[in-house]
Amino acid sequence: MNHLIVYAHPNPRSFNHAIMDTVVDLSDKKGHETRVRDLYAMNFNPVLQGSDFEAFHKGDVPKDIQEEHEHIKWADTITFIYPIWWAAMPAMMKGYVDKVFSNGFAYEYVGGNPVGLLGDKTVIILNTTGSPSDLYEQMGMHDAIKLVSDTGKFQFCDMKVATHTFFGAVPKVDDDTRKGYLQDVKRIMDMYL
Amino acid sequence: MNHLIVYAHPNPRSFNHAIMDTVVDLSDKKGHETRVRDLYAMNFNPVLQGSDFEAFHKGDVPKDIQEEHEHIKWADTITFIYPIWWAAMPAMMKGYVDKVFSNGFAYEYVGGNPVGLLGDKTVIILNTTGSPSDLYEQMGMHDAIKLVSDTGKFQFCDMKVATHTFFGAVPKVDDDTRKGYLQDVKRIMDMYL
Repeated sequence: MNHLIVYAHPNPRSFNHAIMDTVVDLSDKKGHETRVRDLYAMNFNPVLQGSDFEAFHKGDVPKDIQEEHEHIKWADTITFIYPIWWAAMPAMMKGYVDKVFSNGFAYEYVGGNPVGLLGDKTVIILNTTGSPSDLYEQMGMHDAIKLVSDTGKFQFCDMKVATHTFFGAVPKVDDDTRKGYLQDVKRIMDMYL
Repeated sequence: MNHLIVYAHPNPRSFNHAIMDTVVDLSDKKGHETRVRDLYAMNFNPVLQGSDFEAFHKGDVPKDIQEEHEHIKWADTITFIYPIWWAAMPAMMKGYVDKVFSNGFAYEYVGGNPVGLLGDKTVIILNTTGSPSDLYEQMGMHDAIKLVSDTGKFQFCDMKVATHTFFGAVPKVDDDTRKGYLQDVKRIMDMYL
């Protein structure tokens, strides 16, 4: 199976990086072909420009976007790993979606209605949050984040969301809790990979 | 009154730009001091870097962020104008929030709990969507967007959200509907400015 990991965090010593390492390790051990797109390390430019729209209209996909398209086409399963900042994805990850999930590649309009074009992809989403999970759950924030990202982005392209898991209060929890979170990551990945 | 407009759209001929022009015009006519931060025109860099976090820790705010802080400090009312892409703000606007609403400026932790520091600001949010408003309303998407942006961002900093208004199906509606939308913008701004 071809497994693509799309990862966004500025700090290589972050807990998100530890999650990514754990995912790569398990993916390798299970014998999957594994590729990582580390958006910060790649210095990905997340700003969708007017010129990109014009290029899409001409069927002339800009090179940086084309490269990401090739990775997505190649993948059977895509794992997205990023922190929740301000109740949403970092600009770096949002810009990946803005630019890469382009009209004609990720979806198209048929008779005025949108049709997803990535129906053969399974998606796994792993997020850290600064807020404690019980607070975010109680506020309905987890549900809102899932509606905005899973329904509004991945499922719009007909991708199947296998799981969207949140690891809460990351800056505050102790080492044992973090180790437990990484065990959870292994368990989740073992289930869906 | 000091009125700051924060605007993000790549296309100067877009309907978002027409909304911005309408807002500026009314703001001027009402005699308010009006400033526009046009993030695309400014070529704002929306990527929060590890080095930014380190600078914040040292109390050494990067220059581009400091400049935005000064505009926010100056403002009594802030109008945010941007399109909803993929059920959320464009990366350009998300990165403005990621970078500018920084710890110690927009909020701080007191006894482990977050306290907003921008309680004297009123916020107006004007969004366009590609999806029709009745569909987004029915899906709960408007509510999710409000929870994620208003509760999760602006109100977290104790800003008061006067209105968050969506203008639906913008790519599809006819000219009369668009003109009606701009009348709505005038009416809304007249109410809250």
